[in-house]
Order: sequence, then structure tokens, then C-alpha cells
Amino acid sequence: MAKHKILSVNAIENGTVIDHVPSENLFKVIYILGLEKITTMVTFGANLDSRKLGRKAIIKVSEVFFKDDEINKISLVAPHASLNIIRDYEVVEKRDVTIPDEIIGIVKCFNPKCVTNTEAVTTHFWVQNKQKVALRCQYCEKLTTQEELQFEAS
Amino acid sequence: MAKHKILSVNAIENGTVIDHVPSENLFKVIYILGLEKITTMVTFGANLDSRKLGRKAIIKVSEVFFKDDEINKISLVAPHASLNIIRDYEVVEKRDVTIPDEIIGIVKCFNPKCVTNTEAVTTHFWVQNKQKVALRCQYCEKLTTQEELQFEAS
Repeated sequence: MAKHKILSVNAIENGTVIDHVPSENLFKVIYILGLEKITTMVTFGANLDSRKLGRKAIIKVSEVFFKDDEINKISLVAPHASLNIIRDYEVVEKRDVTIPDEIIGIVKCFNPKCVTNTEAVTTHFWVQNKQKVALRCQYCEKLTTQEELQFEAS
Repeated sequence: MAKHKILSVNAIENGTVIDHVPSENLFKVIYILGLEKITTMVTFGANLDSRKLGRKAIIKVSEVFFKDDEINKISLVAPHASLNIIRDYEVVEKRDVTIPDEIIGIVKCFNPKCVTNTEAVTTHFWVQNKQKVALRCQYCEKLTTQEELQFEAS
């Protein structure tokens, strides 16, 4: 049969490339950024070779530019992610993600008795430790650590 | 700044390309095939231009070859999907998906009182209508239609 034609996912004209996402957390990043719902062109690659991470994922989103507080939400699952902001096919800005001081929503409190798990209350955490993520719940004051991170259903 | 280099997702050496997936169902297909968990290279594109569907999604999975019964499960959400089986960079086989006669698991029964919704029983449907999908539950005999299709949590 004929050679399978190369499907090249060309550089996007305008948008955002999120590089150095850990492959195992690609779908968490997609969920946190709400990328299942966007209607512009988006490409994902997972388990790609990376010198920095061994294996990495990349996300390219056309026509979408994230605000700092939006993108910093992914720092919990992709702390080494880097952003390239593309305009007219050129990288016009590079940004890293920063762990924010507080996290509202997204993450579930580890304490099953916390009011956020028993009633319709949005979670709210203060980031206690940015090196090895630890989140202090504003309501029950229990600590949720990186190993215990669970995400709310979308 | 320098031109952003083209990220080309080259043709895979060995694996499967799933084309003509409706963009809005890309994540359902990913879930049904368990692609969040695979460790080989995988790329997805959504909201790509398509003459056939207007907008489509494509999935390329390295080193994975699906069995008929596995791939036919996606027919519920991607009835026009086509598969290209790639070996040594060449398309060695093309396949379409076929709606199977029965569906075990994956889909939730529409009837909240069905035993599959109240106890730990795997759903089992007989496909009543393949044109406009309608699934007859083996347990409660209620019909779940395309509009009512809901997927079990992964």
C-alpha cells in the first residue's frame, strides 16, 4: 500500500504551547484547563522523549492565551511546565508556572469529614509548602499532601 | 525572538491511527480505549478541519494494535471512525468500526432502578438498533438511546 502520509501538526499561528508536562499528568492538566471543552484546534502528545523529564507531554492550543492564575493551577501536577506564547507563528513570550499561594476548587480535601466533602462547599486551600506541595484546608485545617492530591470531578 | 520551530508529529513507525473521530467525543474514545494509561507514544488532535465531519479528531498510538472487539466499542461515539494499521511507516491495513451486537460494561443503564446502578453488576446491553443506537439492558430490559448514553466512571 501507499506510504502513510506524514501527519504533521504544524506550528500554530496564535496560541499557547505547554511543554514539559509529565506524561502521567497530561489528562489532569487537560481537565484543570478545561481543554476537553474548547472548540479551537488543540493537539496533545504524550510519552514523547524528553531530556529533562525522560518522558513528557506537550499541549498546543490555538487561539487560547491563559491568564497567570489559570495557568498556575497546573503547577500542582506539572511544576516544571513551560509556556510558549505564539503570535503570528513566532514565540513572543516564554513563561514558567508558579505554585500559587492559594488554591480554590480543583483539588479535593483529603479529610472525608471536611465540610467540602459533605456539603456543596468549594474547597479552599492555603499552600503550606511549595517545594513538596502541601495544602492546608481553610475549613478543616487538615493538610493534603502531594501523594494525596485528588481532583474534583469535572 | 526566534521562529518557533515546527513540532511535527511524524508518522508512527508501528501502531494505529484512528481518524474521523468526532471532536466532541475525543475524550470518550480515549476513555473507552484506556489511552490515558498507555505508556507508548500517543498523539491526539481535536477540532481539526475535515471534509467529512466538518471538525474531527485524530488519535495516533504507537505500538498498539486493537482487536476488533476492542475497537468496535468506540462505534457508539465514533461510528465513522477509520483505522489505519501502520507497520514500518506504511499503512498495511485499513479498517472501519462496526457497531457490535452486544455491549458489556462501558455504558451506564439509563434506568436508575436497574440492578447495574444499585449493585456492583457490570452492565450488559443488546444493541437493538444500529442506525440510531439503542441499547436494550439485559437486566431491566429498558432501552438506553443515543441521547441518553452515559459512560461509567473509569
